[in-house]
Amino acid sequence: MCLETIIFFGGAVLKNVNNSKLKIIPLGGMELIGMNITAFEFEDSIIVVDCGLAFPAEDMFGIDLVIPDVTYLRDNADKVKGFVITHGHEDHIGALPYVLKDVEAAIYATKLTMGIIDSKLKEHNLQKKIRRKVVKHGQSINLGSFRIEFIKTNHSIVDASALAIYSPAGIIVHTGDFKVDYTPVFGDAIDLQRFGEIGKKGVLALMCESTNAERPGFTLSEKSVGKTLDTIFAEHTENRIIVATFASNVDRVQQIINTSYRFGRKVAIEGRSMVNVISIASDLGYLDIPENTLIETEQLDNYPCERTVFITTGSQGESMAALSRMAEGTHKKVKIRPNDTVILSSNPIPGNEKSVSKIINELLAMKAEVIYHDAHVSGHACQEEIKLIYALVKPKYAIPIHGEFKHRTAQAELIKGLGYDNDHIFMLQTGDVLELSEDSEAKIVGKVPAGRVLVDGLGVGDVGNIVLRDRQHLAEDGIIIVVMTLERGSANVLSGPDIVSRGFVYVRESESLMDGARLVISEAIERCQEKGTSDWSRIKSAIKDDLGEFVWKETKRNPMILPIIMEV
Amino acid sequence: MCLETIIFFGGAVLKNVNNSKLKIIPLGGMELIGMNITAFEFEDSIIVVDCGLAFPAEDMFGIDLVIPDVTYLRDNADKVKGFVITHGHEDHIGALPYVLKDVEAAIYATKLTMGIIDSKLKEHNLQKKIRRKVVKHGQSINLGSFRIEFIKTNHSIVDASALAIYSPAGIIVHTGDFKVDYTPVFGDAIDLQRFGEIGKKGVLALMCESTNAERPGFTLSEKSVGKTLDTIFAEHTENRIIVATFASNVDRVQQIINTSYRFGRKVAIEGRSMVNVISIASDLGYLDIPENTLIETEQLDNYPCERTVFITTGSQGESMAALSRMAEGTHKKVKIRPNDTVILSSNPIPGNEKSVSKIINELLAMKAEVIYHDAHVSGHACQEEIKLIYALVKPKYAIPIHGEFKHRTAQAELIKGLGYDNDHIFMLQTGDVLELSEDSEAKIVGKVPAGRVLVDGLGVGDVGNIVLRDRQHLAEDGIIIVVMTLERGSANVLSGPDIVSRGFVYVRESESLMDGARLVISEAIERCQEKGTSDWSRIKSAIKDDLGEFVWKETKRNPMILPIIMEV
Repeated sequence: MCLETIIFFGGAVLKNVNNSKLKIIPLGGMELIGMNITAFEFEDSIIVVDCGLAFPAEDMFGIDLVIPDVTYLRDNADKVKGFVITHGHEDHIGALPYVLKDVEAAIYATKLTMGIIDSKLKEHNLQKKIRRKVVKHGQSINLGSFRIEFIKTNHSIVDASALAIYSPAGIIVHTGDFKVDYTPVFGDAIDLQRFGEIGKKGVLALMCESTNAERPGFTLSEKSVGKTLDTIFAEHTENRIIVATFASNVDRVQQIINTSYRFGRKVAIEGRSMVNVISIASDLGYLDIPENTLIETEQLDNYPCERTVFITTGSQGESMAALSRMAEGTHKKVKIRPNDTVILSSNPIPGNEKSVSKIINELLAMKAEVIYHDAHVSGHACQEEIKLIYALVKPKYAIPIHGEFKHRTAQAELIKGLGYDNDHIFMLQTGDVLELSEDSEAKIVGKVPAGRVLVDGLGVGDVGNIVLRDRQHLAEDGIIIVVMTLERGSANVLSGPDIVSRGFVYVRESESLMDGARLVISEAIERCQEKGTSDWSRIKSAIKDDLGEFVWKETKRNPMILPIIMEV
Repeated sequence: MCLETIIFFGGAVLKNVNNSKLKIIPLGGMELIGMNITAFEFEDSIIVVDCGLAFPAEDMFGIDLVIPDVTYLRDNADKVKGFVITHGHEDHIGALPYVLKDVEAAIYATKLTMGIIDSKLKEHNLQKKIRRKVVKHGQSINLGSFRIEFIKTNHSIVDASALAIYSPAGIIVHTGDFKVDYTPVFGDAIDLQRFGEIGKKGVLALMCESTNAERPGFTLSEKSVGKTLDTIFAEHTENRIIVATFASNVDRVQQIINTSYRFGRKVAIEGRSMVNVISIASDLGYLDIPENTLIETEQLDNYPCERTVFITTGSQGESMAALSRMAEGTHKKVKIRPNDTVILSSNPIPGNEKSVSKIINELLAMKAEVIYHDAHVSGHACQEEIKLIYALVKPKYAIPIHGEFKHRTAQAELIKGLGYDNDHIFMLQTGDVLELSEDSEAKIVGKVPAGRVLVDGLGVGDVGNIVLRDRQHLAEDGIIIVVMTLERGSANVLSGPDIVSRGFVYVRESESLMDGARLVISEAIERCQEKGTSDWSRIKSAIKDDLGEFVWKETKRNPMILPIIMEV
């Protein structure tokens, strides 16, 4: 592969005179699908690509969001020249309001992406503080030692971009999330020519997303969903139709509206996040809604069922979303009726299968018809598209990103077929520092602090592993609290022990168990008294151990045991 | 359809002289895949088909198993003539040890099924108390007013049966779990002839399983997996091979052993449940293990890697199973090495996708190769097989069983294409009493008590909704305990209030929050004192309300608040 050490940009010629190296430092996104954020560092300049959140894993009880640990950026805040955002999905923008509080820098993104970011910053009262610049596809921005070019791609949200990152050490291409859609619903197809053109210049590394790297073939065009919708609508001319999909998939909403219009139906939209995105997209000109088509939910009853369509959130079975509430019969405005046709225009994201099934079952039990196959296409590149991008860009190094280890491994295996060997594929971990330039072999040279920060309510980072472990323990077997009052500096019981339990067992049904527990506690205290122990922490341990053992023997359960000693 | 009211059985002729009706009462299995149990009642006779458990749903914190509520059987224990079991999977036999304690009756099953039941009863010390009879395919048993014939089927466990249930009111065919495998690994193909023969007699109702009713086509033969294994083994002659599969899939284990033997490899088996089933199957002649093939795990190191195969449990990502421990590096005997080939001969059961992915990612990170596609076939009938059974049995009524509402609806939709209308398809709910006979229209005539009973450790049914709700609450936001000693009959504080929290927040990081909390509590008590309230339950409510509100305002969290008042 031919790599030039002289790069032309913005008319100027920059040469990497002192052979400095570019550092690529993923601060998230390497162990999961979510929390995408990568720092690019060259001498005194850092740019950050994306700044996403992750949704909590099943064992993160009570956690609302997970955001990346950006200690490294905070420690180098003066170097950070800006956040460059590829598209407006939560796993690419959701951590911005949190991270910007620590690392204040300007944001660069395309128009719709910025519209969504704007509404997010507003919620967090940050919109006045943070500088933002809307960038068009084909346009470049200069940030410190970097120039970044936005390249048009296709994805399940419009205005998605790949990035060509020009540094004195070489060019990096970052795909963002993409698919190749030759017939997109809105705007142009992915700018494959530009990928080829940049590839011809010589690209040092390609950071390509891996979400669908396990899937052979080619992802279908978004337009194919429109055809499916047409067919379904044609087969259900006598039913009210409810379509659930992702709030941010503007093209999908456009197609649902188009089909509704063709079939002479009025459309109402429900679900806070969807109303929000639709209004942003509509204001910015990304949605073309025929006149007199959109109505308020309250107006739906003015029209015959078979003349209405309802677009809603909740296609992932989210318990608070509109569709869940309809399925449970608790939605204030919409009641499911027999013969309603409900279309899930989505696939369950891994982990959501059960909650999606729950909704389907509930809707079917209400005698609605539910269509949950084939009314969706993915927004991510399958294997043939990934190979196509490699064929156009022909990077020296491959850095599979955006996926669990298995997705990224699938990309690695795939491109071995294109001639890449293990020395030219970098399977980075979050926090790894990959150093590379055109003149030397790329290598991982170190690690920066990195990880996840849990957000629970207003608290950012105040729920750590100990609190989580306690929640897991409490969830598993509940808690037994033993309270007693002791005379100061002694083991003499003045009152108690009282036993209170929560989440352990119905106390009424287990009085003999509680009697036994009281006995065990008394004996433990007596033993301490006999030994002359007045150290309350020892008394607590004795109660904890003995009661724990007793409860396990009797019930094979292991509740948290919390002795509390009061003094008078 | 021609239906005779005179049925010949065992040589005798029984006529439904008083036009009594048969009652079919599902006590589980209608809302989920799991907990299969159905009562068939005719006058003074009840037979129970299957008696399975379900695994807990995600929101059933700490629950080990779910078993059916058999109040109806307990209330009619003297009528119960026996438990007739279709096959040895947990969702068909797992509740037996619990239910038998309430409803003592004999068990009827085929040889391997009974072997597995035996080992289960032994664990619960029931093997001496419960009468058991092994039945062969083609054989019938007489139980009260019923005759039950066992019909050979194919499934992912050998010795599976369908049942023809002959009652004076007509014949019911119950498929159990089945697929049509023309080339099974062990024994014969499903006895399609007999289905046809019984169908010709006139069948009142068919109870057909619905697990794969959403899937078009035909389930592949178990033998196809053997071919896949051969291919994988041929491509990995230099690696150690680890195969994870379902413990109870004896045919799968047989094929893994066969392939291993063909490739000159020794086989070790790990995982308690697998060792158990293998030993039962081997003792009963359902497994044919070539001499000198099976070795102990400890002997594995005596052979070169590429001459060994390891069969293990944990293909569903179960955290305690052998494969999980290997993937985490905590398995005592087996360490994963780079270049190991791990085959997941299974598909994730819905709900297990994330835990399976976790294991795959961990194994890949250890540089093992993981093959997790295409080395598995289902044990359940797809749409073409379901239609085939209907075509052979031609029942008057269809009762889709074994599945969530969506699976059973898929069967209902499927057979509408065969000419069944809504009056002849019964979508029963657990507890429904369906009354039917040849002379009258079938209808749901009532409901019996039915539901789920939660098993947690040794406790059966002592964890109910209140305890579960507490566990959910504790899991979500933890607990704040407020302890104080008051003077008897007053609101005078002698000591405290002390605040202890678990699963809420790091106390060290939130001292100001705790200071604020103490203030709020003091004020609440003072208010009570001013009002002259000495009713402690009022004081507790005041603390709960005020502290709850304060914490929500400060943190947007809603921990359980538990005030405890001691008296001296």
